This record gives sequence, structure tokens and C-alpha cells, in this order.
Amino acid sequence: MISEKMKPLVENNSAIRAMFEEGKRLAGIYGEEHVYDFSLGNPNVPAPEAVKQAIFDILNQEESTFVHGYMSNAGFEDVREAIAASLNRRFGTSFHLNNILMTVGAASGLNVILKTILNPGEQVVVFAPYFVEYGAYVRNYDGGLVVVPPDTETFQPNLEAFASMIGEKTRAVIINTPNNPTGVIYSEETLRRIADILYAKEEEYHTQIVLISDEPYRELAYDGAVVPYVTKYYRDTAVCYSYSKSLSLPGERIGYLVIPDEMQGSEELFSAACIANRVLGCVNAPSLMQRVILRCVDEKTDVDAYDRNRNLLYSSLTDYGFTCIKPEGAFYLFVKTPGDEAVFCETCKKHHVLVVPGSSFACPGYVRIAYCVSYQQIERSLPAFQAIAKECGLSGGC
Amino acid sequence: MISEKMKPLVENNSAIRAMFEEGKRLAGIYGEEHVYDFSLGNPNVPAPEAVKQAIFDILNQEESTFVHGYMSNAGFEDVREAIAASLNRRFGTSFHLNNILMTVGAASGLNVILKTILNPGEQVVVFAPYFVEYGAYVRNYDGGLVVVPPDTETFQPNLEAFASMIGEKTRAVIINTPNNPTGVIYSEETLRRIADILYAKEEEYHTQIVLISDEPYRELAYDGAVVPYVTKYYRDTAVCYSYSKSLSLPGERIGYLVIPDEMQGSEELFSAACIANRVLGCVNAPSLMQRVILRCVDEKTDVDAYDRNRNLLYSSLTDYGFTCIKPEGAFYLFVKTPGDEAVFCETCKKHHVLVVPGSSFACPGYVRIAYCVSYQQIERSLPAFQAIAKECGLSGGC
Repeated sequence: MISEKMKPLVENNSAIRAMFEEGKRLAGIYGEEHVYDFSLGNPNVPAPEAVKQAIFDILNQEESTFVHGYMSNAGFEDVREAIAASLNRRFGTSFHLNNILMTVGAASGLNVILKTILNPGEQVVVFAPYFVEYGAYVRNYDGGLVVVPPDTETFQPNLEAFASMIGEKTRAVIINTPNNPTGVIYSEETLRRIADILYAKEEEYHTQIVLISDEPYRELAYDGAVVPYVTKYYRDTAVCYSYSKSLSLPGERIGYLVIPDEMQGSEELFSAACIANRVLGCVNAPSLMQRVILRCVDEKTDVDAYDRNRNLLYSSLTDYGFTCIKPEGAFYLFVKTPGDEAVFCETCKKHHVLVVPGSSFACPGYVRIAYCVSYQQIERSLPAFQAIAKECGLSGGC
Repeated sequence: MISEKMKPLVENNSAIRAMFEEGKRLAGIYGEEHVYDFSLGNPNVPAPEAVKQAIFDILNQEESTFVHGYMSNAGFEDVREAIAASLNRRFGTSFHLNNILMTVGAASGLNVILKTILNPGEQVVVFAPYFVEYGAYVRNYDGGLVVVPPDTETFQPNLEAFASMIGEKTRAVIINTPNNPTGVIYSEETLRRIADILYAKEEEYHTQIVLISDEPYRELAYDGAVVPYVTKYYRDTAVCYSYSKSLSLPGERIGYLVIPDEMQGSEELFSAACIANRVLGCVNAPSLMQRVILRCVDEKTDVDAYDRNRNLLYSSLTDYGFTCIKPEGAFYLFVKTPGDEAVFCETCKKHHVLVVPGSSFACPGYVRIAYCVSYQQIERSLPAFQAIAKECGLSGGC
């Protein structure tokens, strides 16, 4: 009964989601306290109190038919203006409301921009390890995914390989910084080099290549790390943003797409993206949450909580003998598996520790550990990690 | 810069949305009181008070990380259970939670089911007049749209033409009852005949044809009219529902897709639809609104308000000499244009009356008048309608 294009998706259903469902199953058997689910990027830090207050105020002060009603497919104008102004204040950009399209989260923003620009057979370049859903998004529009192999020393993008993999069919490049799953932030220098490569390739092939910056983790950076604003480095940049992590609203599906004036054909692109947003069935981003963003545009989640988790988990795991780079942003550790990845995941599961295999990010030999969980869960899980280290023969295993 | 598939969409952008934007423009010039915008199906009846109360209670009683967090892509289990139980109570069905997939409104539900079942080149049959976006949804998956011509006497589906237009490439049929734009409700007899035709054609061509019932207007029926539940008449029926109209929440994008057990390959279809919901970028239906539905599952908008509008507008326009059938449901009048449709729309606009041309519904020679506006707007607009009638030489024009 299902379409041919859906078949491989059903066969290779998301390992992350499978692990999440497995976590729920194990919690049902052993109790939530005894299952250490590090599978899903589902923030454990509550939304800022200002979000709740904003909802109360909106419902008390604004008309129901307005708050819950249709608006332009791009979203409420005042919301888009407020976001543009906030970005301009923070990053020295000069956006206006017609650069901002409200979307059903960043995942939908990615679908909208891909539908807007991608023709069948054109290619989209991503850097391993990458969020595996990118592949599904690209195939939604019959594009081909080109995966640049990882530089596992630094997990910075492998730019030499990148340059060699761009061809005349390259239509877009997706970057994700701070990165899921590695926590790496791309430096200004990296972005400049990416831009140089893209400009050179555009000239070589007489093409236009769109750099798509997927930024749900923009606000989650540690130790004062700076996350450069990508539109300032490359002309044809579209930004997909989400409040899933910055305001702890992942289930609400609220984000936006930025199409700057600098982009070639910007106005037409923006109109087309609004239509793509509509005909993909989203119609518009959820309206109450748009009104919330207007009142909470400069609010931010408690990044310190994630930072405490990061420090405890990183120092403990490296003590136990595990190998991983220290993340500068996002809320994931990307840990090298001692031995076979699948065996390691099974060992973890035996100790009720749920992690996501690196092969789900096109980077086998690693696991992703999402530390957007309670500090207590990390504390409780440490003996399990230590036992796993021992079972794997690592030096720090007890 | 935009993709080839987007180009015709940009060129033929939604007439409904264009009229909505035009209404906003005219209101800016002449003042809202002097513009009679009947273009958009944007409910003027506020959401039931219970919705507001539910939101307050949820935010006061439930955890932020739960209310705003990720859940299974299909939606919260308790919400899906409550919806299944409500449908079972009302319609004598026997759904359970794994028949219900929460979606970003009905438009997204339609995209999800089409992505799940449709292969390139397969055909989807619709009955004119139909909601024009169906064409875009079908083309998203490279399907072909087959339009059954209208029976303009009754605006019931033209079943003879229908039977002759089903072929071996027919994969799905979309029906919409109560109907946008005509307000017609399909009777039990009609549904039985549609089912008979589909079963016969399935046998003839050895195919499986999915009947997709798009039901945002299910709760809006007048004079005690019954809206039969479609899954009871045809085995392979998927239902796309939305709370946009029944709870006046169109901007919130909350609805669900029903995939009954009776459907062939039901379990696989449901799994695939959950994945389609995720990879299209929706991930899940907005979480707070899902929680609201749990508490408001049997709430309903004030249908009487629309009924009063219907009666006033229908009796006035027919008095002025316009021709239209009296709608049994939804909140639209589908009025025959005296003379050329485009000229008539311009005449209306001159009198600050905004309506949508019937050709936007593949049924030229008509206009759709959305009466989900205030009673006062209808009262204020009547002299304009009377003047339009006069200008068109109708007998009731003043």
C-alpha cells in the first residue's frame, strides 16, 4: 500500500526515534529511575517562565480570533519584525520583516528552502557526521545527497574533501553549527574558507550554490564561544532557526527561515518559500507560539544547566577511558566506541544506557550521547558508564 | 533561483490568499468598516472559552518539558486515545490510538497520506468545484490530478463522470464534505455509490484505491443535517480532520489523520505515515494544542452564529436576484455570477466586496463568499451587494 519512495524510509526508520521508543519501553519495565535515556535531543530544562507568562498575557489581552486565526503564510508581521530587529541588534545584520518566514520548526524550514530551490537530480552537500534526516529532506525533492567524510581529529569540516566534491550539479550545502552530534562550532575562519570555495566553484561551473545554515543550537554555546552569523560570510545563505532548544519548545514546532536581501533573487525566493510553506501543508507556523516569540524574542534557556551536564559527563567519561572531543556547543557528546559500534550499543543497552549509534550520522565507530537530561540522571548513570568501560576493557573501568 | 516545480506555483499563486492580501490593502485605505472581505475561511467565532481555560490549566498543572516537549511522531498517546474514543461514541466506529496520527492541520494530513501512498504518475481524482490546493499537494508527490466536472444543478458529485474517469493509474480520490466551496453534504446514498464504484474499479483494474475524506467542516452542519462518517462506507478510507473550524483554531495547525484497521496494510501505512509526518518537517503536531484537544475533545464552536449568517446572506442575495443553492454545511455560499466571472469580481471589488472566483475551484462562472464573518459585516455589506446586483442588471437590484 505504501509508495516506493516511502519503502526505504520505513525500512531504515530513524535510529534516534527507535531508541526513544525503546527507552519508553525499558522505563515501563524497570522504572524511569533505572533507565538512562540519552537518545533524544529533547530539552530537560523547562521553557523560561516568561513563556508561560506570555501565553497568559496573550490569552488575556488579545482577541481569540486573532491569536488563533490565519495570518499571511509568512507569519504575523509584528513577529517577523521583532525577530529581524533582534537579529540586527545581536549580529549587526540588516534584516527586515520580508527576510523572515515563520516555520513549523527548523525541520520544516529546511523542507521549505529545499522545495523552493532544488530540482530533481541536483545535489546537496553535507558534512559527516550529520543529522541523518537531511537525507530524507533532500530526497523529498528528488535531490541527491553528497556526504563529505569526517575529519575525526577535530570534527571541523573537511574542506579539502569538500572542495573536491562540489560539481556542476551542486545546488546547496547544509551546515549545522553548533553541530549535532559533535558539539563543534565552525569558526569565522572556517566560514570564510567555505565561502571562498563556494564562490570559486560558482564561477567555475556558472552555478548558484545556496548555503543552508541549520541553527537550532545557536544559543547553546559554552565558555564564551562565539557562533558567527553565517549570512555575513557568504551571499547566498539561508538560515533555518528553531526555538526548540533556545526556548525549550521542541514539541511546539516554531522557528523561522531567513532569506536575506543579499541572496540572488531574494524577493522571488521569499515569495516562493511562502508558497512552499503553504503547499507542503504547514500553511503557517503555529499562531499562538508566534505571538509568544514576539514577547520572548530575547529570552533564552538556562544554558548553565547544560554546561554543568557537559562538564560532569565529559570529565567522567574521559576518566573512565572513553575518547571524545569536548563540545563547545549544543548538548551532545560524540564518543568513540571501543570496538564495534553495534556491540557497544548493545553493551550500553544491557546497562540500561540508551545512546544513538554514530552510523545514524554517517560516522560509524561513535555514539551520540544527548546530555539534555537532568543532572541527577547523569549522576545516576555514571556507575553504568563505568561498568560499560570495564566491560570494554578501558583503563578507567572499575 | 527557484526550482522548476515552484515556478507555476509562484505564477498562479492562490487567488484566495491574493484576495486576503488585497482585503488587508483596501482596509488600510478605506478602513476595515468599509471593506467587506468574504475571501478567507478564517472563522470569526472565537474559540470556545474551554480552550482558553484548558491552556491555563495545562500550564498550571503539567510540566513544561512535557507540555512543550517532543513526543512520538504520531502524537501524545492519551490525546490519540481520547480522539478515538470520541469518534467511537459519536459515530459507532471502533478506532484505537494507533488509528490516529496527530497532524499540523488537515492540509498537512493530506500531504502526509499522499506522500505515504502516491507514486509518480499515479492519479488522484477530485470533484469540481474543489479546494485548489489539492492540486499542489498531489503535484508535491508527482501525481496527476483528475478533475471530475461539476453537476451545477445540485453540486452533488457527478458520479457517472466519476466512474468513467477512474483508470488503472487511479491511486486515490479526495472528497470534501461538507464541501468547500458549495456547502453541500454528501448523503449516505452518495457515499454508498462512491464505494460501489471504487470496489468495482479495484476489481476491474486489480488496484487499491484510497478514498481520502478531507473533513475540516464536519461539525458545521445546519438544520440537523447528518454528515455520515466515511470510513463506514468504504474500506480503504483515510480521514483528514482539522480543528481549524470546529474549535476556531486555524492558525494553530492542529488536526489528525485517521487510518482505520480495515484499510489494507493498515499497520504498515500507519508507520509510514508517522515517518512521512516527520520527514516532511512537521515532526509532530504542535504539542500544547494536542494537550488542549485532550481537554476539549467534545467541545464545538458556536454553529448557530454561522447559521444566522447563512440565513441572512442567502435570503438577501437571492432576494437581490442572485442564484445559489442553500448550503447545508461549512460557511460558504457558491453564487452564480451574472455574466463574466472576472468582470463580476471586479464589480464586487469596486464596491469593496472581496470574494473568490469560482475558477479558483475549477468551476468558473461562480464566486465563493465566505460567511465566517461578523453578522454586522454581512448587514453592512448588503447595500453593496444590492448595488452590485443592480449594476449586473439583476431583478432585485435597487
